[in-house]
Amino acid sequence: MNSENFLLSEKIVSPSYVRQGSQARRGHEQLIRQLLEQGKCPEEGWSESTVELFLNELAVMDSNNFLGNCGVGEREGRVASGLVARRHYRLIHGIGRSGDIAAIQPKAAGSSLLNKLTNSVVLDILKLSGVRSVASCFVVPMATGMSLALCFLTLRHRRPKARYIIWPRIDQKSCFKSMITAGFEPVVVENVLDGDELRTDLEAVERKVEELGAENILCVHSTTSCFAPRVPDSLEELAAMCAKHNIPHVVNNAYGVQSSKCMHLIQQGARVGRIDAFVQSLDKNFMVPVGGAIIAGFDAAFIEEISKMYPGDSCWFASPSCCLVASTSVFVFSHERLHDLQEIYSILAEELKRLASAHGERLLHTPHNPISLAMSLDGLQATSDKAVTQLGSMLFTRQVSGARVIPLGKEQIINGYTFRGFMSHSESYPCPYLNAASAIGITREDVALCIKRLDKSLKALKKEGKAARSPSPLASQNL
Amino acid sequence: MNSENFLLSEKIVSPSYVRQGSQARRGHEQLIRQLLEQGKCPEEGWSESTVELFLNELAVMDSNNFLGNCGVGEREGRVASGLVARRHYRLIHGIGRSGDIAAIQPKAAGSSLLNKLTNSVVLDILKLSGVRSVASCFVVPMATGMSLALCFLTLRHRRPKARYIIWPRIDQKSCFKSMITAGFEPVVVENVLDGDELRTDLEAVERKVEELGAENILCVHSTTSCFAPRVPDSLEELAAMCAKHNIPHVVNNAYGVQSSKCMHLIQQGARVGRIDAFVQSLDKNFMVPVGGAIIAGFDAAFIEEISKMYPGDSCWFASPSCCLVASTSVFVFSHERLHDLQEIYSILAEELKRLASAHGERLLHTPHNPISLAMSLDGLQATSDKAVTQLGSMLFTRQVSGARVIPLGKEQIINGYTFRGFMSHSESYPCPYLNAASAIGITREDVALCIKRLDKSLKALKKEGKAARSPSPLASQNL
Amino acid sequence: MNSENFLLSEKIVSPSYVRQGSQARRGHEQLIRQLLEQGKCPEEGWSESTVELFLNELAVMDSNNFLGNCGVGEREGRVASGLVARRHYRLIHGIGRSGDIAAIQPKAAGSSLLNKLTNSVVLDILKLSGVRSVASCFVVPMATGMSLALCFLTLRHRRPKARYIIWPRIDQKSCFKSMITAGFEPVVVENVLDGDELRTDLEAVERKVEELGAENILCVHSTTSCFAPRVPDSLEELAAMCAKHNIPHVVNNAYGVQSSKCMHLIQQGARVGRIDAFVQSLDKNFMVPVGGAIIAGFDAAFIEEISKMYPGDSCWFASPSCCLVASTSVFVFSHERLHDLQEIYSILAEELKRLASAHGERLLHTPHNPISLAMSLDGLQATSDKAVTQLGSMLFTRQVSGARVIPLGKEQIINGYTFRGFMSHSESYPCPYLNAASAIGITREDVALCIKRLDKSLKALKKEGKAARSPSPLASQNL
Amino acid sequence: MNSENFLLSEKIVSPSYVRQGSQARRGHEQLIRQLLEQGKCPEEGWSESTVELFLNELAVMDSNNFLGNCGVGEREGRVASGLVARRHYRLIHGIGRSGDIAAIQPKAAGSSLLNKLTNSVVLDILKLSGVRSVASCFVVPMATGMSLALCFLTLRHRRPKARYIIWPRIDQKSCFKSMITAGFEPVVVENVLDGDELRTDLEAVERKVEELGAENILCVHSTTSCFAPRVPDSLEELAAMCAKHNIPHVVNNAYGVQSSKCMHLIQQGARVGRIDAFVQSLDKNFMVPVGGAIIAGFDAAFIEEISKMYPGDSCWFASPSCCLVASTSVFVFSHERLHDLQEIYSILAEELKRLASAHGERLLHTPHNPISLAMSLDGLQATSDKAVTQLGSMLFTRQVSGARVIPLGKEQIINGYTFRGFMSHSESYPCPYLNAASAIGITREDVALCIKRLDKSLKALKKEGKAARSPSPLASQNL
Repeated sequence: MNSENFLLSEKIVSPSYVRQGSQARRGHEQLIRQLLEQGKCPEEGWSESTVELFLNELAVMDSNNFLGNCGVGEREGRVASGLVARRHYRLIHGIGRSGDIAAIQPKAAGSSLLNKLTNSVVLDILKLSGVRSVASCFVVPMATGMSLALCFLTLRHRRPKARYIIWPRIDQKSCFKSMITAGFEPVVVENVLDGDELRTDLEAVERKVEELGAENILCVHSTTSCFAPRVPDSLEELAAMCAKHNIPHVVNNAYGVQSSKCMHLIQQGARVGRIDAFVQSLDKNFMVPVGGAIIAGFDAAFIEEISKMYPGDSCWFASPSCCLVASTSVFVFSHERLHDLQEIYSILAEELKRLASAHGERLLHTPHNPISLAMSLDGLQATSDKAVTQLGSMLFTRQVSGARVIPLGKEQIINGYTFRGFMSHSESYPCPYLNAASAIGITREDVALCIKRLDKSLKALKKEGKAARSPSPLASQNL
Repeated sequence: MNSENFLLSEKIVSPSYVRQGSQARRGHEQLIRQLLEQGKCPEEGWSESTVELFLNELAVMDSNNFLGNCGVGEREGRVASGLVARRHYRLIHGIGRSGDIAAIQPKAAGSSLLNKLTNSVVLDILKLSGVRSVASCFVVPMATGMSLALCFLTLRHRRPKARYIIWPRIDQKSCFKSMITAGFEPVVVENVLDGDELRTDLEAVERKVEELGAENILCVHSTTSCFAPRVPDSLEELAAMCAKHNIPHVVNNAYGVQSSKCMHLIQQGARVGRIDAFVQSLDKNFMVPVGGAIIAGFDAAFIEEISKMYPGDSCWFASPSCCLVASTSVFVFSHERLHDLQEIYSILAEELKRLASAHGERLLHTPHNPISLAMSLDGLQATSDKAVTQLGSMLFTRQVSGARVIPLGKEQIINGYTFRGFMSHSESYPCPYLNAASAIGITREDVALCIKRLDKSLKALKKEGKAARSPSPLASQNL
Repeated sequence: MNSENFLLSEKIVSPSYVRQGSQARRGHEQLIRQLLEQGKCPEEGWSESTVELFLNELAVMDSNNFLGNCGVGEREGRVASGLVARRHYRLIHGIGRSGDIAAIQPKAAGSSLLNKLTNSVVLDILKLSGVRSVASCFVVPMATGMSLALCFLTLRHRRPKARYIIWPRIDQKSCFKSMITAGFEPVVVENVLDGDELRTDLEAVERKVEELGAENILCVHSTTSCFAPRVPDSLEELAAMCAKHNIPHVVNNAYGVQSSKCMHLIQQGARVGRIDAFVQSLDKNFMVPVGGAIIAGFDAAFIEEISKMYPGDSCWFASPSCCLVASTSVFVFSHERLHDLQEIYSILAEELKRLASAHGERLLHTPHNPISLAMSLDGLQATSDKAVTQLGSMLFTRQVSGARVIPLGKEQIINGYTFRGFMSHSESYPCPYLNAASAIGITREDVALCIKRLDKSLKALKKEGKAARSPSPLASQNL
Repeated sequence: MNSENFLLSEKIVSPSYVRQGSQARRGHEQLIRQLLEQGKCPEEGWSESTVELFLNELAVMDSNNFLGNCGVGEREGRVASGLVARRHYRLIHGIGRSGDIAAIQPKAAGSSLLNKLTNSVVLDILKLSGVRSVASCFVVPMATGMSLALCFLTLRHRRPKARYIIWPRIDQKSCFKSMITAGFEPVVVENVLDGDELRTDLEAVERKVEELGAENILCVHSTTSCFAPRVPDSLEELAAMCAKHNIPHVVNNAYGVQSSKCMHLIQQGARVGRIDAFVQSLDKNFMVPVGGAIIAGFDAAFIEEISKMYPGDSCWFASPSCCLVASTSVFVFSHERLHDLQEIYSILAEELKRLASAHGERLLHTPHNPISLAMSLDGLQATSDKAVTQLGSMLFTRQVSGARVIPLGKEQIINGYTFRGFMSHSESYPCPYLNAASAIGITREDVALCIKRLDKSLKALKKEGKAARSPSPLASQNL
């Protein structure tokens, strides 16, 4: 309601009440003002009513919601289903323009505003999370893997001769594929075993650089967040090496925004050496159901170059921004939350340790992995060959999701490349194991339930195992 | 409610009423059954209540909605904001798995089902729209331009030596960029003027093929839907040429699904020659606010190869599918609707013709463009140099969206390539003009309003023009 | 967004786009201004987005949505479930105050405003619908029957001695009960048969008045909308009689707002005689799922007296108003719509006539009933005693709702009063019959489907009837 | 999805995943089964997804949602606005039938089921809250005051001669009006001052009974929850007196369900004497934005008699039930919650006490009032005559809602009855005071904020008071 309408309202109900109402409105508007002025993540989460008010206001600014609009183009933010329109808060116009994702769309002032704010808020969160000197970022409506590919494709124009990407092995398909998709040859560098941990083989990387020639290498493609017992790559050393050889460096920071350690590694890498871009998932770090990624870096010009490389046919829609603003508003960045996450990590570690020792296993010692933990399954494997895989399906049936079971010796061929010991980041990790992670959104209840069900499953398998080894003809019926 | 609960209900309210209620439920279930059984676009639009019932049922099948679930992985479909969860019908888990977009995600049976059905329904609609022999398709959560790039990147692995893409000029940035992004060199083939129409210069294409050598050409990249006076490329002839020279052929069918002519061209092209893939926008053809595309083709193996090339880190989310199912259910494919669209095309053409002649302009004769129309602005340009651009901003202010104004002689540099006469698909189109299109979702009211406002604007500009040429010192104040 | 925020937005996206957006906002605000200024039903239905914008704006004005509010009373608009809050647009505070339904609630400026507007818009609609001289009305959150009782209870204070209410019989329980509930003795006046129609026995009413003494009569309680073959009471004559004898007159106008004839009767009655109040249902006339009623009259002071008699413990909630505004905004009063309803009435009449003659029945001739129609079931009854009731359950099973079947001779006791021939408004209507009505919201499809299923059912019953009378031992199995 | 559709789904995605999904569905169904079987408040709150699933299932059972329904009656659950339909979960049909609120509506099996369950769950909560021997209750869609009136109107039929209702004074308009509305003469019995507390003057009640004659007394109308320093009526003694004299007893338990003390009083009253009905607000006890009430009692037959007296023209809609089920499911009855409420009561008491002594006031000693507290304002009044009312408006402006300020000597005329000292429940309470309550939904933050703002306001007023008494000419500008 504008001031005119408030005045009219005062004739209908008492002026003092209306004035209080209009003052209350100002409360919401102040929050919106702060966001517009500073472009930063609000310090306190907005209430749902502020979020909805804001989104409704933005929607009203888009041409598809103009009361007198007539559209005679091929793309006018028309929508087939009212149900769909509502669930997008009527922000149904694309943003970006004629293949330029960063351009403002004249037909969609509200959505464009939302988009700009989103990038701004996200940049603020990256800084708060530890990469203090990040210069620029943008949200791209594509999966993390495809976003990595876009970085590589952009680099191609800078290094037309380069054919190789050096990649310390991490057993996750999409980041491997991103190199293949972009048309490069991945140079897989096996990790070294250091205690229980698998860490970057820096010497091997250096050797490869010399062997292939820096000018033939598109970039080094390193990783932060990963499943234990692998630990984040040695970013500082890799960054220094890249700087020395003048090789670009792209970091896959998949779900690392939630970890101050991962973010710190990136900040340090950029300080002492070279990091050209780091890419992170939208959904895994911000808990939004949107398949997007954030491409960020320390040189605004290079990040803009990537954004200009995106052949978006004006079709980055407001949906991801809308989700993200709604979510970050509610679930603002906070040191308390990160601290809480670390506490759950400690609980999970302790509980797994206790459980492991009760079952004759052990918690692998991986202090450098800030998110993921691993528990050996040696004993289990000893009972029966199939026991380890059986554990996986038992956990599935018991609705424990995300607890990966890693058997020994799995072989996998991806785009012609053979990976021995797939899923374990190593050709020959010494033991089978089980992963669990303390990732954003996890609760203490999740940990407790997981431990309980894991315990039950392990007991059941052991019982079975013994039965299987005993001569009883009835044993197999236990299965 | 299952049968047990219906029985319990019979004890609370009259059995005959409950039975009628349970029978009514079967009505919805029958519709769902048909969809599951046939995987086809329903013949009649579903009511919103059936759509919501179905989406709720699917959501219940996803692990993030399991009542007793505990998640200890890095990606468990957690969501920060309830507001966001609700607007996604709680279908917030990603689908696809470990970099394989087509794989079924065990944690998200409901979303996976939705995904499979979406691809199946979309395939059905492509067939019904005229490409009867299409073999396979998949919805990809990326803009059309990026999807074209993915096709080119996939072809690179088949034709490692090829460096060029032959591209009959169409002035739209993102499809041009898609080639640059993928790392290829676009070979721009200017169109020929045929009456008012700009059509494919087949001889020039043939010449280029011979000049560059078929083995050095990644593919021909042609276009169907486009702004008049350009018309869809001569697909039959291009397809035949590609077959002859054994060159792949990728068609940008941007918003062509809504036109039986465009679809017919593709069907014919595939019949007489070679079309490897055709790519279309999700939003522009299905009126959904989702930046996705459909990659389709006649050889299922090749389409699968493209889908496997997508480095999706398991993050194709249910959102696009959800919107699409909701929309196609409400707004089903129908020949009546397409027929209606053609009728609006005729009305728009007639009205523009009438208006043009009233203002001393003419409707350009572009019978081969089934969607877009163009009206000359020669007379307007004669009144003043700035008049043509002024018309554009007047229409913007008067909330006519999508009516593009094309001045003469605009120059644009994209990724180092210079386009003269940009926006007109030609280095030297004979006259400036205005575009309007009869695209899906347009209404008769839109046409009427557009004509009315266009008329007003033209009149205003003429008056101004006269004033400008008269010696009155006050004239400029009219601007 | 206030002007300050719009200015800030101009720094983020292009000023001209933001200005267009802010202008678009004014479009919605103008509609709201008109409503606030005139308090009338908008001439054109508001779009859903205007409705939602308005309701959100109002919600923001209620104290339960103040960002810094703290409540330490017993009733602070708190809400247990977010789900419930959202579906009430967060307008969850009661309106009215300390037992005065019309008082403005300081804690709920938005809801109070909504309430005032609702009463104002409803008054406008009553006028437009034909009761041009109505002086005042208010929406009361109670069923129609309870609202009639409230009118009687208010009259008691004016006529403390009166014990009787004169009531031309209409077979509908709640309006009969309303008199019992209020503690009065209903004096049932049987209707007279005039052709097929049952109409008010004016002489009998006059006789009763003289017999009981005007001072002992609380009021005459007449009815407009009713099931055929009863027709609306002779309001003009009753009103004149009431004026003559100085007896109050309360009209049950249940679902009569949708009929210009019913409204005309009330207008005429008030013009030539006396009508103190007329009461109508909210849900049946406005198609809102809310159990409320509108109490209206020609003397504002008396209507206020009724409103003050309502012992509402500050708990008239915004929900009905909210629904009503949402609905009237979308579904505005229009003469076209009423005209359309009359057309469907004609179609229904014709179709029933055709069907009746095909089955040896006839459409009862009830030209004075503008909404309901009746078709005789003489022939059906002749086939079997149970056939008439069977028809009822067949229609139920075939999902024809609202088609009442009226057998002969049903007896019903209500609060000690015995009604012979219950449901037929008469002790001895000549024939059994079936009712169908052309009421607001009915569609041509409803009529067509109803006729089709009715035809099928009648055929099935006839076949059965014949079979039953034939000696075949298998006949009963058809049942 | 029925089993058939699950089977079909297994052909589309992996059977084991679908089976887990269908098992997950059973989880929700089990919760629904328990509710249907036991009709009790669930022990743990349902998730929003279970609530929505259940409401959607019920909606599907109502005829207005039948896919093939055709309605030709005057009331078919039609709805003007989709927006309104959605916010009612499409449960838009009335329940109850032909003036019988308890009857099942054939057209609305789902809504009827919801209604029955609601009454059943509410009865369970009344029992759990302390009235263990309650026999029956029903939710009535009317304000508490009107519901009390309905009880009185029902009693009239049992005691046709009775004219008086004995009513220990409580200064709340609507419960006073309920007696006037029903047509009876309230006999106001002033309270006695006992320390700071105002309690029932039992001797005066007894005297009135003897004076007027038991047979002339319709009932005693007592109250539990009220603002301090009044305390709940002495229910045990009143109930015993009613039993002795054979006078009905109706208790206004407005917002007493949240207090185990109030509920205990009712239980005890019924045990040792006579309580015919007790009436409570829906919104104030269950935090639902619905103007309804619960009429309950110990004799099922009498409660049924009241329900049959309700002249509901089939128009009790599902909306209140729907809200209530949604809310109770989320916000289940729990002893912890009640315990928490008592704790906040203690905190509020202590904080007020501290504040009072800091400002030279005192917390009134009212141990028998379990919800409301009062702090004297003697000192404030001493500073200036207007100070007490000023405090009220200061708190309003500072968004402290529900903190009532009670000045001395206010006079109020209600329906011809004069109340001296209105709002204080007494003709001459010794001091002005301020009320605050620990009512359901209040948080610790509310208490803290209230104390803070109250402190500030008192300080400001004192300063002003001093300034006013000093000769400074600038003082008034402080206002």
